[in-house]
Amino acid sequence: MVSWPWQALRYAAENRERILRELSEFASIPSMSSDPARVEDIRSAAEWMAHRFRVLEFRRVEVLKTAGHPVVLAEAPAVGKPAGTVMVYGHYDVQPPDPLGDWKTDPFAATQVGDYLHARGVSDMKGQIIACLAATEAALSTGALPVTVKFLIEGEEEIGSPNLGPFLKEHADRLACDLALNCDAGMLGAEIPTIVYGLRGMHQCALAVRGPRRDLHSGGFGGIVHNPIHALSSLIASLHDEDGRVTLPGFYDRVRPISPEEHEEMARLPVGESAYVEEAGVPRLWGEPGFLPTERVSARPALDVVQVRAGSPKSAIPAEAVALVTMRLVPDQVPEELAASLERHVASHAPDTVSWEIRNARGHPPSLTDRGSAGVRALAKALETVWEKPPVYHREGGSINAVGEIQKVLGTDSVLTGFSLPGDNVHGPNERLHLPTWDRGIAALIHFLSNLATA
Amino acid sequence: MVSWPWQALRYAAENRERILRELSEFASIPSMSSDPARVEDIRSAAEWMAHRFRVLEFRRVEVLKTAGHPVVLAEAPAVGKPAGTVMVYGHYDVQPPDPLGDWKTDPFAATQVGDYLHARGVSDMKGQIIACLAATEAALSTGALPVTVKFLIEGEEEIGSPNLGPFLKEHADRLACDLALNCDAGMLGAEIPTIVYGLRGMHQCALAVRGPRRDLHSGGFGGIVHNPIHALSSLIASLHDEDGRVTLPGFYDRVRPISPEEHEEMARLPVGESAYVEEAGVPRLWGEPGFLPTERVSARPALDVVQVRAGSPKSAIPAEAVALVTMRLVPDQVPEELAASLERHVASHAPDTVSWEIRNARGHPPSLTDRGSAGVRALAKALETVWEKPPVYHREGGSINAVGEIQKVLGTDSVLTGFSLPGDNVHGPNERLHLPTWDRGIAALIHFLSNLATA
Repeated sequence: MVSWPWQALRYAAENRERILRELSEFASIPSMSSDPARVEDIRSAAEWMAHRFRVLEFRRVEVLKTAGHPVVLAEAPAVGKPAGTVMVYGHYDVQPPDPLGDWKTDPFAATQVGDYLHARGVSDMKGQIIACLAATEAALSTGALPVTVKFLIEGEEEIGSPNLGPFLKEHADRLACDLALNCDAGMLGAEIPTIVYGLRGMHQCALAVRGPRRDLHSGGFGGIVHNPIHALSSLIASLHDEDGRVTLPGFYDRVRPISPEEHEEMARLPVGESAYVEEAGVPRLWGEPGFLPTERVSARPALDVVQVRAGSPKSAIPAEAVALVTMRLVPDQVPEELAASLERHVASHAPDTVSWEIRNARGHPPSLTDRGSAGVRALAKALETVWEKPPVYHREGGSINAVGEIQKVLGTDSVLTGFSLPGDNVHGPNERLHLPTWDRGIAALIHFLSNLATA
Repeated sequence: MVSWPWQALRYAAENRERILRELSEFASIPSMSSDPARVEDIRSAAEWMAHRFRVLEFRRVEVLKTAGHPVVLAEAPAVGKPAGTVMVYGHYDVQPPDPLGDWKTDPFAATQVGDYLHARGVSDMKGQIIACLAATEAALSTGALPVTVKFLIEGEEEIGSPNLGPFLKEHADRLACDLALNCDAGMLGAEIPTIVYGLRGMHQCALAVRGPRRDLHSGGFGGIVHNPIHALSSLIASLHDEDGRVTLPGFYDRVRPISPEEHEEMARLPVGESAYVEEAGVPRLWGEPGFLPTERVSARPALDVVQVRAGSPKSAIPAEAVALVTMRLVPDQVPEELAASLERHVASHAPDTVSWEIRNARGHPPSLTDRGSAGVRALAKALETVWEKPPVYHREGGSINAVGEIQKVLGTDSVLTGFSLPGDNVHGPNERLHLPTWDRGIAALIHFLSNLATA
């Protein structure tokens, strides 16, 4: 039997306005990890977190250096003998706000508009961190925290968590835990509590095509020099067939087939073709034939060129054209094999009128979590208590490097959920957080911690 | 019989160092017409020119407004009864210096390195303007200027001379002339005096492909939304066939065939495949089969995408991808027809998973000049006197909007030459001017003015 954490729930409700103010303050720090000019803001965000932990009298609060941005650690002690240890993973860094002109409010002045709080990072994932903190505070303050809660808040998730693996290795002893809670995965809708049990991995690299030694006047050389923009465009075009399949040799060979049961479940997910069309604002969907949209964004791999940098408004044939190629991977694809496949593909398709190079390759593997574990059951019960319906189990299309690293270094599985919604404009302009969902999220996290007492 | 302008030649030689200092000063003004932040520098460059004209006691010196950057006018009076009126056309604006990091010297601190002066605009075309000015000054100061020389120096050539046509119309009376001299065309080599009798025209536009309403996280949507970068890349790839021919319907229909005589002449031009390969720094040439490189860059049209703007390093499927498409046109292609052809091509090739738009279309027609005119003969004789060999007659691949506008509005033909060399890095980093060629250019222009007395 699970006892309801009434007092903690009341505590959270009574402190709700203060906690929201804290989130607004946190979200107003422009902690863009990709921008070298923001290194002071990154540090401010880390110190802000540490300050909150200290105010709440958490133990062992530290801002620890890495080769990149710092990691904040803290521990909330269990009341009495701990029923176990949960690690709350989070990241205090955010995406850049560009294109800035498309924002209706200042991205770094959190602004409430109706039921939404608008700011960069408010959904991804400062709001989620504050929800975890609020739930832990509520349980701790009301004497109802049955487990030790270790917080690990990094500052490099949006740039691929390059230093998290080494950090986990260095601090493996003090980070030992039975379970990691990761609220960086989203919900499928405000009325659809969601547990994520699969994540796509990522491989990315820059594909550079070089033409002339230097930019050439297109009047003097147009017609005799192969423009690297044209050559790169043909290469990009060659990465998919007309139906939307990726053409890299062996790309789909290791993809784990979707079982009939999983297919049925994906078909039942309350997110159909028209919902995606509406959400994306496209004329119609596109992609690999023979699979549901929900399968294509989670259990099937994808390849997207996310940037092309080439030329200028000057009338010149540029010396170089560069594409940033990203692949979203699923079990059991191997990033290194696909990197080699891309290289073979380019080698066989690039014309001899240009040269080319692949650089800055990096990535991390996909993951799948055991849906029958104690942590997943405790979370499922908590979500069902608050939303009054069982959660849906979902494979997420995005990548969370931390999940793989925590599994690899600490041997700990992550339980993934979160209270961001598909319309939150994560990574785009006008990012927002749906506050009623956030409130329910805090309540669910209080139930989750409580459920762990008997899990 | 033509008398040699000995005194003017001696004057130019004696004043050479001062004139070079003036060029260095002029070239150090960052008069980039495409950069709104440089409007003051543009004005400084115009005022610098006007000041030089006034110092030389030219008549009717004025800096006149246009809807864009100002035009500088001035007149050098003939000695005695004018044998006619020549208009010297020039542009004091320059291309932006980017990529700045590739410059070995400060682009706006003219630096002499051996026989070369390095600075943005020193070849295109501040050095050419100063050469015209020096020749006129030398002839005027030694009582040997047989014609009235009207200077028209505009500030918008590098952005397509959008306001030159209206300006010429407004000031047509005072700009009336028998001949225009345009030194914005280059030489084929330091030992190859060159007269340009043809110019390619230009049509350009932006092709924008729109995908989702806003940038979408590529984890959440990769595999179901057609990435506009992919769609745009396929469109760009579709603009040429595998051999390098432009695929737009009717693209070559109106191209005036190259006569057997012109073909022979082009074949004799001392610029072969290997010279172009060396100059461009490419593995091999590329382009329309069946034509010489010299034909492909002058008498055949070309299509180049000179810029792609799409996406960011964020892992997002961008809302839009934009290509800047340029076409170099030859007689008798009609820009409007090709604009319509591009639109039909895109309409028939764009997939229905994205939308698209063509915008900012503009252009100007190609031109061919009568090689038997008095002005061309006076210039040919002047070049032959200095270089001790007859000039080559050449069709230039670039576009000089002014030539068409002056023909259209004033009814005046342009004689085209210039003393820039293929290795001058015009429009690229490390632009330079070969000073020994520049010196010969000044001498040739003195002869040209002198020859006009009896032309």
